[in-house]
Amino acid sequence: MDQFHFLNGQLFCEATPVAKIAEECGTPAYVYSRAAFLQKYREFANAFGELHPTICFSVKCCGNLSILRLLAAAGCGFDVTSGGELQRALRAGGEPGKIIYAGVGKTDPEIVDAINAGIAAFNCESEEEIENVDRIAAAMGRTIIGAVRVNPDVDARSHAKTTTGKKQTKFGVDIDRVEDVFDHFRSLRHLRLAGVHIHIGSPVLGAQPYVDAVSKATGLIDRLTAKGHEIRWLDCGGGFPAAYEALDDGPGIHEFARVLVPLLRNKPYKIAFEPGRYIAANSGILLTRVLYRKSSGDRRFVIVDAGMNDLLRPTLYEAYHHIWPTSLRGELDLPGARRRGAAPPDAEKVNIVGPVCETGDYLALDRPLPPTRRGDLLAVFSAGAYGFAMASNYNNRPRPAEVLVDGTNFQVIRRRETLEQLLAGEDAA
Amino acid sequence: MDQFHFLNGQLFCEATPVAKIAEECGTPAYVYSRAAFLQKYREFANAFGELHPTICFSVKCCGNLSILRLLAAAGCGFDVTSGGELQRALRAGGEPGKIIYAGVGKTDPEIVDAINAGIAAFNCESEEEIENVDRIAAAMGRTIIGAVRVNPDVDARSHAKTTTGKKQTKFGVDIDRVEDVFDHFRSLRHLRLAGVHIHIGSPVLGAQPYVDAVSKATGLIDRLTAKGHEIRWLDCGGGFPAAYEALDDGPGIHEFARVLVPLLRNKPYKIAFEPGRYIAANSGILLTRVLYRKSSGDRRFVIVDAGMNDLLRPTLYEAYHHIWPTSLRGELDLPGARRRGAAPPDAEKVNIVGPVCETGDYLALDRPLPPTRRGDLLAVFSAGAYGFAMASNYNNRPRPAEVLVDGTNFQVIRRRETLEQLLAGEDAA
Repeated sequence: MDQFHFLNGQLFCEATPVAKIAEECGTPAYVYSRAAFLQKYREFANAFGELHPTICFSVKCCGNLSILRLLAAAGCGFDVTSGGELQRALRAGGEPGKIIYAGVGKTDPEIVDAINAGIAAFNCESEEEIENVDRIAAAMGRTIIGAVRVNPDVDARSHAKTTTGKKQTKFGVDIDRVEDVFDHFRSLRHLRLAGVHIHIGSPVLGAQPYVDAVSKATGLIDRLTAKGHEIRWLDCGGGFPAAYEALDDGPGIHEFARVLVPLLRNKPYKIAFEPGRYIAANSGILLTRVLYRKSSGDRRFVIVDAGMNDLLRPTLYEAYHHIWPTSLRGELDLPGARRRGAAPPDAEKVNIVGPVCETGDYLALDRPLPPTRRGDLLAVFSAGAYGFAMASNYNNRPRPAEVLVDGTNFQVIRRRETLEQLLAGEDAA
Repeated sequence: MDQFHFLNGQLFCEATPVAKIAEECGTPAYVYSRAAFLQKYREFANAFGELHPTICFSVKCCGNLSILRLLAAAGCGFDVTSGGELQRALRAGGEPGKIIYAGVGKTDPEIVDAINAGIAAFNCESEEEIENVDRIAAAMGRTIIGAVRVNPDVDARSHAKTTTGKKQTKFGVDIDRVEDVFDHFRSLRHLRLAGVHIHIGSPVLGAQPYVDAVSKATGLIDRLTAKGHEIRWLDCGGGFPAAYEALDDGPGIHEFARVLVPLLRNKPYKIAFEPGRYIAANSGILLTRVLYRKSSGDRRFVIVDAGMNDLLRPTLYEAYHHIWPTSLRGELDLPGARRRGAAPPDAEKVNIVGPVCETGDYLALDRPLPPTRRGDLLAVFSAGAYGFAMASNYNNRPRPAEVLVDGTNFQVIRRRETLEQLLAGEDAA
């Protein structure tokens, strides 16, 4: 069951009415469900259980320390993309042996820190990076493990800004060139290239692109092994989709597992996955209040207190987030309505927009919504991934609070920013 | 003269080599020229001097306290869009009598603070907001001045995300309905509607949309005056373009003034303008270093240490920023080359991308660039407006330092964020 559900017309997160959270913590606020995070993580782990994979939660999608802590305590590893994310993973109690560091632009200090931390592996994205990581490891007198990120030239059919597995993206080494790279760097003394990493984008819509990419990767490993390369693991990346448009939207994780497990069964190397969105997206919502309503031309607008600085996805990716009042009146507003296009008879089509001075500042356009009044509370669903993580202070707006619910309890796991914090670092001036 | 110029093959900001700033302050870093800010402000003030306008710098485009301080000291007022921006304007020594507060989503606490500060005026965007501001002023026993933002239904021919003056955007009250609004609210006791505000987008490409909008606004004021409304001022908004593609790109401010001043001369009401981009864009650059180079498919990539979290405009608006090495070798690299499409014979077409794990993380695509090496320093020009202001911590990346140059001196006016700062507010967890 989804952890965000209506009971007697009120939206609950687990056993806590979200209106109570808004009252105590203010709006806008991100509200996460502890149970949802754990449930999604376990669902994922169970689906692929036969492979005994290393599951590395993608810190970039939702990096709050408390969230990472609860996942680490459940046995989850971490996929990090920067020195900052590595620090988060370590502070949360992440086991270094389950931390993988990916990213096209690792700086020297970041590489040093990651070597010192003893992470599982570096996913290297270019020849120059391979040389640089080896050089730094040599200077530190260390020998470390690396994987080569392979660009399998598979179209994830995702958004142009988040498709990463086609040729002509900045990620990885082309699959038709990667054997040469393994050969060329086989005698490196301090960076052992012993892994293959793929990641074709997020969200991957449908299992077939994933099947294609994994098949290419296992074929590659077979060829590398035949040539004497010792490949210890395959990192299959992330990109498993979340249900944005309805609770049962798109393929579930078991559908991916059903077709992927047979491809990966009984391999002589370890398997890693990097789910992020799959675990986090529907484990969080963004709570926002209606400030004003207005008409302009023939459009109706609902102006809320959350803007593009709080949730960038609608304007950056034209992303769909279901938005609904947290307090219902009619039968048609009941949970089944959490489905794109569902609307009660009295719904009006509105643009739900934020306070930021920019036309691109919207959460939804042309969206059927039950009539709202000033002060009404709205839930922006599926906001747990790439929500707070992409928030900014644009228009000098403090970033929202983050709240974690556990049954009938909740706690602020990141306080709302203050105006003082926004000025930090400018005081010497 | 532009304050970012090449001398003996090295890029200078005023009399300071930018390489020296990168060495002392690290990269990525925003570098601003004090002289450029003042020069652009004075250019603007002179162009419209005959109107003795109130010039309100748009804080949202570049809100660093030191920048606001130098503008305030030069006599500039401020256009703010949030309580946070109001605090910045006040702390910088901005005169409340020259502060205008715009924005569709003013919250009650923000309205209270602005009334207490004694700002010049509220630009109100909807009937519900007018009622709310009046209600709050009444509760505080104050009488304040407001303007109605009018949507003149003029196409600024700007980017879809930044065009604000057409019907069907969230901004303002439709011009064909606004007289009714003035009439309806003429007897408010605590909010006196005594101004008209227009703002059609940014950047406004060409003077004609501006002429159309101002003509509509002055005509409206004439009709309102005839009906007995006492209109004390007209806020013409901002949106004056900056030269992004070449030093002499697009209409200069004098071209706008030439056609606008005759429309606004000898009016019985005060005139305000809200320039932001025009003053700030070419007063700042973003300095970034080349981390790695690579090929993928038939594309060449230059991976730099600044990403979409540092400068969002390329991915959000497909915005063009000229990018060039700060250290030149050949004749063709000289200043004239700061023009879109200009390139030396040995240039290669590259994608200039950042370290963020996302295909949308780029600063430029298919861009001719002289050959670069690891460690080379690049300048991203015209980054003073909507640069740092839109920066985020995506991928848990600390935001860059901001540096202000004054001749041969420079000082850090905002320190680079630390990883500790990024965790602030999560400590209680």
